[in-house]
Amino acid sequence: MIRHFLSLSSFSHRDLQALVDRAHFFSVNSQQPDQIHHLLTRKIFANVFYEPSTRTRCSFEIAAKRLGADVVNFVPENSSVKKGETVYDTLKTLESLGVDGIVFRHSDDHVLDQLRDRIQLPLLNAGAGKNEHPSQGLLDLLTLHQEFGRLAGLKIAVCGDIKHSRVAGSLMVAAEMFGMEIYLCGPSGLLPEPKGPTVRTADFDEVLPIVDAVMMLRIQLERHQGLELDAGAYHVHFGLTEARVGRMRPDAITLHPGPFNRGVEIADAVVEHPKSRIFKQMSNGVFARMAILEWAMRGRQ
Amino acid sequence: MIRHFLSLSSFSHRDLQALVDRAHFFSVNSQQPDQIHHLLTRKIFANVFYEPSTRTRCSFEIAAKRLGADVVNFVPENSSVKKGETVYDTLKTLESLGVDGIVFRHSDDHVLDQLRDRIQLPLLNAGAGKNEHPSQGLLDLLTLHQEFGRLAGLKIAVCGDIKHSRVAGSLMVAAEMFGMEIYLCGPSGLLPEPKGPTVRTADFDEVLPIVDAVMMLRIQLERHQGLELDAGAYHVHFGLTEARVGRMRPDAITLHPGPFNRGVEIADAVVEHPKSRIFKQMSNGVFARMAILEWAMRGRQ
Amino acid sequence: MIRHFLSLSSFSHRDLQALVDRAHFFSVNSQQPDQIHHLLTRKIFANVFYEPSTRTRCSFEIAAKRLGADVVNFVPENSSVKKGETVYDTLKTLESLGVDGIVFRHSDDHVLDQLRDRIQLPLLNAGAGKNEHPSQGLLDLLTLHQEFGRLAGLKIAVCGDIKHSRVAGSLMVAAEMFGMEIYLCGPSGLLPEPKGPTVRTADFDEVLPIVDAVMMLRIQLERHQGLELDAGAYHVHFGLTEARVGRMRPDAITLHPGPFNRGVEIADAVVEHPKSRIFKQMSNGVFARMAILEWAMRGRQ
Repeated sequence: MIRHFLSLSSFSHRDLQALVDRAHFFSVNSQQPDQIHHLLTRKIFANVFYEPSTRTRCSFEIAAKRLGADVVNFVPENSSVKKGETVYDTLKTLESLGVDGIVFRHSDDHVLDQLRDRIQLPLLNAGAGKNEHPSQGLLDLLTLHQEFGRLAGLKIAVCGDIKHSRVAGSLMVAAEMFGMEIYLCGPSGLLPEPKGPTVRTADFDEVLPIVDAVMMLRIQLERHQGLELDAGAYHVHFGLTEARVGRMRPDAITLHPGPFNRGVEIADAVVEHPKSRIFKQMSNGVFARMAILEWAMRGRQ
Repeated sequence: MIRHFLSLSSFSHRDLQALVDRAHFFSVNSQQPDQIHHLLTRKIFANVFYEPSTRTRCSFEIAAKRLGADVVNFVPENSSVKKGETVYDTLKTLESLGVDGIVFRHSDDHVLDQLRDRIQLPLLNAGAGKNEHPSQGLLDLLTLHQEFGRLAGLKIAVCGDIKHSRVAGSLMVAAEMFGMEIYLCGPSGLLPEPKGPTVRTADFDEVLPIVDAVMMLRIQLERHQGLELDAGAYHVHFGLTEARVGRMRPDAITLHPGPFNRGVEIADAVVEHPKSRIFKQMSNGVFARMAILEWAMRGRQ
Repeated sequence: MIRHFLSLSSFSHRDLQALVDRAHFFSVNSQQPDQIHHLLTRKIFANVFYEPSTRTRCSFEIAAKRLGADVVNFVPENSSVKKGETVYDTLKTLESLGVDGIVFRHSDDHVLDQLRDRIQLPLLNAGAGKNEHPSQGLLDLLTLHQEFGRLAGLKIAVCGDIKHSRVAGSLMVAAEMFGMEIYLCGPSGLLPEPKGPTVRTADFDEVLPIVDAVMMLRIQLERHQGLELDAGAYHVHFGLTEARVGRMRPDAITLHPGPFNRGVEIADAVVEHPKSRIFKQMSNGVFARMAILEWAMRGRQ
């Protein structure tokens, strides 16, 4: 069976915890690069990004290289896409070229659903459509687990453009699996219908003092055209300001998947606040992706 | 002497057969990556593509990496070309930087002719102008040889925009060398004057039942601007449909260099027909390019 | 302490000479790639170029790979920059991703000044703003030292758009340190105020017969918009023509950082004149950058 990594929901609680643990192992051994460099030697992954990305593409590339694998970057703009090639034909081409896995990002929600049974090598979802961004979900779980030593029972406020956020999508999947309580905050027009027993909408300022973590989301202006956004007013109502950070519990932390807009959803001064785990998340992203790549290659050759 | 790989016509029959055989060796050993990874360690190739390409660029890059070499991608748009640098000066720069070979694509027919005597390291033609695409020619020979156990006497129909096809150009060079018979089919305006005793024009539907292979070509709209093409009518007259595939000999195969336009020169349903070797060709492309890179490095250091 | 490589002026005479010597060592051992390939294994550098570049980006990438390191290319156009991410946040992201050093180019003069104390891994200046291009400066020193066996007392004419040239900026820093005499030539509007005892303005044709080296600079049209330049007249007054090369001392050499505009600041016929070290400079650029990368990694892990 092909080990696609498309959604956290396809994992059992136990298997997902094993991935978190393996990512943590890579984290604590990050200063001994020689000890892990043999794990994926001779493997070649293709990065196929139909949407721009800094951190996710580089994060997967660095993860692969830390494990001794190599990476081929496929840039759709410079390619046969200009000649009208379909996504399926492009991925099938990469499969034929003998790559060992495809790290894939696309704006279409359903493109992976149509491809998963037709591509005979692991597809790794690096953010597809508005639904899930499972490698980000894994790094969030890793960050929370490192901080609190557990996931069950954690209370997390998510604030911002949740409706258009695949990051929030993956977090909510994990929340249900691990028994975390999620509070959805933000402008009502940007909130989805809460699903499942562990997700509810809430007033941001009301839940701030009780949560273990606040995850701020970027307003993805490129995804809802026509909407007028007053950045200053947004900051007042929903931005993570110093005042708001001051009202959080002493051991609570702040998260953001990045890239962030300083002064909009997060105040410049709190990006590197002692409570902030934002850059820790980025470091953890590499470790999470190492665990994902290694998992996907199990059973191949 | 510098081992440029510019045209199949510069090889003897024997040397070209040796390349086909070496590519076949890489094909049958593709599941033992450790056994070939030492062949080109410490070599660095530059990919220099002045025209967009997915499969050829990635194919050369994967071929290099499978042999233990590394690759530097030079993207003209992001480079000194914007500052007015000539192609010669760019290649001379890469030579000075110490790369071991240059994989090169350009739209100009004659650019390699002007450069071959002035660049002191192997130039590998990855598709220049409308004349030749010799690495594609080699992979076609490999695919045909794997299928039929021989090349001499094979009958091949080529259908489509042959006049603008460097793929057909390289095939016709090989056909004469190996004694294959080529039938050129397609709209009369897109057919070149047949050259040599083994190439003739023919009616597509007439030759279909007698050939060993049909090679379909993409209509390269980007190369003949102003021409109005009715894709539906083209498909009826010259497209590879299920009905046409049904009229081919039982052991005959279908080829396409890709990227293809489903519903224009090839019906969606026959891309992955049992007779199709289209994705096999792509796999063979990596093996062919491994043979080319290894050949070009012989005698260096 | 983080070993940033931002300016030649931050080095002592002795340390800079040590870098020149180490680069020379790489130069004379360039045919034994196996002997140096272990020096930076497991290191990963990020190339972050906010301005286009062929030779510098590829030069650093090849330098890294010759030392056994790997490289991640970050292309701002395809990235979160589109989403409004600041330079600091991008570099901080790459730091978090665990790269070992950042090779950086930007058009802003002061961007590195603002970043040097905030980024906790080596920043390597690959050309920032109009001030310095220190890796180019190092390769120029290497080229001069190889040629003349010394640097002290060398007389060098620099001709062209010096005001906008970071190459000239780094050369002038080195000139003062090593006691070279610099003559600034070119249109008066493109010359800076000479600083220091070893730099003076001069008439190009007057100093030509006395200097050890002439460094020609490209007219960087993209940096001074609105200025009308008559390329033909420029060539007559300030171009390096065959006649001018003929008036140089027998052992004098010509330099150009590239990319060059044939027929503007340099005649087509003298680019590869026996006196020209232009392509030698490019080769030396890889060796200089190997020395820089190795220096920056000393003391890390």
